Amino acid sequence: MSKNEQNNKLLIIPLGGIGEIGKNMTIIQYGKEILLIDAGLMFPEEEMLGIDIVIPDITYLLENKDYIKGILITHGHEDHIGALPYILQQLNAPLYGTKLTLGLVEGKLKETKLNKKNISMNVVKPPASINLGSFTVDFIRVNHSIPDSVAFAIHTPVGIVCHTGDFKLDQTPVDGEKADLNKFAELGTKGVLALLSDSTNAEREGYTMSEKVVGHTIDDIFRSAKGRIIIATFASNIHRIQQIFDAAYKNDKKVAVVGRSMVNAVNIALDLGYLTIPKSLMMELDEICRLPKERIVIITTGSQGEPMSALTRMAMSEHKKVEIIPGDTVLISASAIPGNEKLISRTIDRLFKSGANVIYEPISGVHVSGHASQEELKLMINLVKPKFFIPVHGEYRHLVHHSRLAEEVGIPQENIFITENGRILEFTKDSCRFAGRVTAGKVLVDGLGVGDVGNIVLRDRRQLSQDGILIVVVAIDKETGEVVSGPDIISRGFVYVRESETLMEQAREKVKQSLKKCHEENISEWSTIKSQVREDLGKLLFEQTRRRPMILPIIMEV
Amino acid sequence: MSKNEQNNKLLIIPLGGIGEIGKNMTIIQYGKEILLIDAGLMFPEEEMLGIDIVIPDITYLLENKDYIKGILITHGHEDHIGALPYILQQLNAPLYGTKLTLGLVEGKLKETKLNKKNISMNVVKPPASINLGSFTVDFIRVNHSIPDSVAFAIHTPVGIVCHTGDFKLDQTPVDGEKADLNKFAELGTKGVLALLSDSTNAEREGYTMSEKVVGHTIDDIFRSAKGRIIIATFASNIHRIQQIFDAAYKNDKKVAVVGRSMVNAVNIALDLGYLTIPKSLMMELDEICRLPKERIVIITTGSQGEPMSALTRMAMSEHKKVEIIPGDTVLISASAIPGNEKLISRTIDRLFKSGANVIYEPISGVHVSGHASQEELKLMINLVKPKFFIPVHGEYRHLVHHSRLAEEVGIPQENIFITENGRILEFTKDSCRFAGRVTAGKVLVDGLGVGDVGNIVLRDRRQLSQDGILIVVVAIDKETGEVVSGPDIISRGFVYVRESETLMEQAREKVKQSLKKCHEENISEWSTIKSQVREDLGKLLFEQTRRRPMILPIIMEV
Repeated sequence: MSKNEQNNKLLIIPLGGIGEIGKNMTIIQYGKEILLIDAGLMFPEEEMLGIDIVIPDITYLLENKDYIKGILITHGHEDHIGALPYILQQLNAPLYGTKLTLGLVEGKLKETKLNKKNISMNVVKPPASINLGSFTVDFIRVNHSIPDSVAFAIHTPVGIVCHTGDFKLDQTPVDGEKADLNKFAELGTKGVLALLSDSTNAEREGYTMSEKVVGHTIDDIFRSAKGRIIIATFASNIHRIQQIFDAAYKNDKKVAVVGRSMVNAVNIALDLGYLTIPKSLMMELDEICRLPKERIVIITTGSQGEPMSALTRMAMSEHKKVEIIPGDTVLISASAIPGNEKLISRTIDRLFKSGANVIYEPISGVHVSGHASQEELKLMINLVKPKFFIPVHGEYRHLVHHSRLAEEVGIPQENIFITENGRILEFTKDSCRFAGRVTAGKVLVDGLGVGDVGNIVLRDRRQLSQDGILIVVVAIDKETGEVVSGPDIISRGFVYVRESETLMEQAREKVKQSLKKCHEENISEWSTIKSQVREDLGKLLFEQTRRRPMILPIIMEV
Repeated sequence: MSKNEQNNKLLIIPLGGIGEIGKNMTIIQYGKEILLIDAGLMFPEEEMLGIDIVIPDITYLLENKDYIKGILITHGHEDHIGALPYILQQLNAPLYGTKLTLGLVEGKLKETKLNKKNISMNVVKPPASINLGSFTVDFIRVNHSIPDSVAFAIHTPVGIVCHTGDFKLDQTPVDGEKADLNKFAELGTKGVLALLSDSTNAEREGYTMSEKVVGHTIDDIFRSAKGRIIIATFASNIHRIQQIFDAAYKNDKKVAVVGRSMVNAVNIALDLGYLTIPKSLMMELDEICRLPKERIVIITTGSQGEPMSALTRMAMSEHKKVEIIPGDTVLISASAIPGNEKLISRTIDRLFKSGANVIYEPISGVHVSGHASQEELKLMINLVKPKFFIPVHGEYRHLVHHSRLAEEVGIPQENIFITENGRILEFTKDSCRFAGRVTAGKVLVDGLGVGDVGNIVLRDRRQLSQDGILIVVVAIDKETGEVVSGPDIISRGFVYVRESETLMEQAREKVKQSLKKCHEENISEWSTIKSQVREDLGKLLFEQTRRRPMILPIIMEV
């Protein structure tokens, strides 16, 4: 696309978060001005063996580095801020977000040992607006499973673009900070060009319950439990943590906070004033253990059954200080992130085995979602009355369901756009169309390597993980071409060698034959010899075992 | 334990199915007589890389081969019959089951290429009783997600043991064959020593809905769908398949059956009279494709998103004959087996992307469970009125919940036994206690290898899967100990080598230094040299990449 053509057009280009849950990132571009909304990470899919996290491909941003006027952050969850330490290595732009959000970003930048430049961090307190080039951005309060979440209304020369971020509409939020429905209504009355709205819960009927409901459940549990109480939840769910402290106070219990990320989150929230806790309520773990059991509450990480988390280690009797004992009540105040179901079940089983009473979903009121259900999603569309509707933040099926909701409330089908990462949506004041693509995709982070693990490496890891590897080593005289030493066969992850001596002997024989055949046929190309060995040996092994290990022939010339 | 002591005691020894979903197998032993109930497989856990299936360890049965009077099969699901091809290699005993169950067993034995002896297969039609040594076994009809499922009441010299198998209580079963509640009541009145009952759904409140409900949903969908209909369900759910055919007949559509296991199941069920289908209703896939779209129904496998299944291949446009097109309605009439959630979501997303309308859980009435919910479980206990209660078939948390239900309906806590695989429960007419253990565990099947993949191999596969492998090859002169060739470094699954030449060069240098150091210090023990290389190189790689690949030094003497 030529840049001139688009000078008076508005472009919306998602680089992540479409057709997937995570690595949210959206570009709003007008001419030579770009706003970036969020920079999140995603956790790896099961088949991405050994990968730690996944971030968006930002090639397009790097090509247009100088256009970036600012990075707007909706809230402090990893799938919205987790890519910042990586992308801020490569480009410089001021950050705009609420106080807690930027507090969490700061913690994150400190934590990662990646070098960082001086980054301009600008706290905005909603309701407020900022000017960035031709854009004016309204910060609009919404509710979510972390405090201080916002939506954005971006006033552009072409029209208003409203991006909800992740949201729900909590009529009785714990901190009293309700979603600013009046602002959305006002925008709707004025006229909104496009609404980008959170699709995560588009499959879920009705309304998402208020966070307050969980507070009541926790209070009930605190009142009736006889022994210690251990609660696992998401570290960033500050409202949940506040409610746990409130229930502890009301029921004359003390609270210890355990687990690195939980301690970090609580400290940041305390520092910035997002948690209100009487000093004496919170105790160190060592201290609290001296209290009578019925006065002890422990807040911890591990609600997803993560193998190294505090709760999992407690369940496995591997935690240094806390062991689960009969009489303990364990509350898992969270829902399973898809893919974690089995890990969580295992943790629950182990906790039960240790004699704890375990309370978890689907028991009502143990957890509520942070995302809007169908009725709220429809309400949002009805308030904002956008000309064009773009469902974002969701797997493809969520986007489809959200589109159907939009149609139901009267958005014409042709004004609804299910887009893709990297696809350009081009707007004029009264039109919207797909207009090409930019580079987009997944960048895999493995240890310190960003993007150095690609398909070939993953394919190898997959093969290695299934049937292991056989290494065939042979030394050949460089003059005569005759075998000087070997063939030796070494295997890892294939069979337990001590019990498979016959098979290994057969394998060595087979390799000898292959080499002999090559020698007789005057084949001296190493790659040909190697293929022959791989083929012959592979066939033997498959016949004998129905397995296909990786076979790596190594020929040394001496 | 001495065998004499136990001569007039009754033993119940589970070898599988306790604290896990799958590989169900229970021993009922009186003196030198053993009955085996079920012989199932389990699908591997995520960390069992490359493993195909898991079966119970039958060491105890092999030690007591001659005692086995018979193998009783409750129903034809894999987790109840899937280990038969393996254990029947090692022991011989007559099989007893209903007609469909043994039909499926026969199909299974034929399919596996493992040789088999002449096995005595004895069809029993409930209500009926058989005598086996000192035991009399009543076959009692129950409902489940496969026809012809039974429970057993085993009359022993010590008392009656009742084993429900997998069950639900369907008041309106598709085939009209209701669970024989009167028989359970009669046993209860007579007096039952122990009840072993299915715990799979012990967490679920209320009643499990009748299979008929799904029939109504299917009928509704058939009536309103405009294009082709593709339905995925479990191949063994013959009642579901019958209802699909019924709905097709009613709505003037034709049906093709696709997918190997689905075709097999339908053929066996047709042969044995468990499906009633007018001849002209069923068509070959090639044939049916010539009909107008609104007359086409395709029943297929792939309800769990299995990568090689027909539905997944259709969704990926990789199926030879069927491609999903806009206008298709795809019904996934199944629930996710834990661990499969992500695969299923992916299939659903791809189907939506191809333009299909996809209908799936949690939409009401798309699927019902085959297992009893809490109210049915309590009803069963109340009918049977056992002296001792043993929850079976479930993860540990299911067993705990089931125990709580038993307590609720009045079984004293001290009469409820949550047992473990391999643990012996010893009964007299009025007592029950734990009395030692026998060998029990998981035998991993990988290709043709049964039990040859153990912890070491799995540990290696895990390490290989995470960070790959580096192989260091060096040839040393056997006289002088000097390096003749190498070190060469080959990696797989570690980094993309072309982009990491510097790192590989550093690695080679590091190895040279290690070898030099060893040479200077007169270290000639190969194992010591190898450790040194592993340590030095491992440190370098971790510093540079934060990865820990497997390092395999190979020294050749020439």
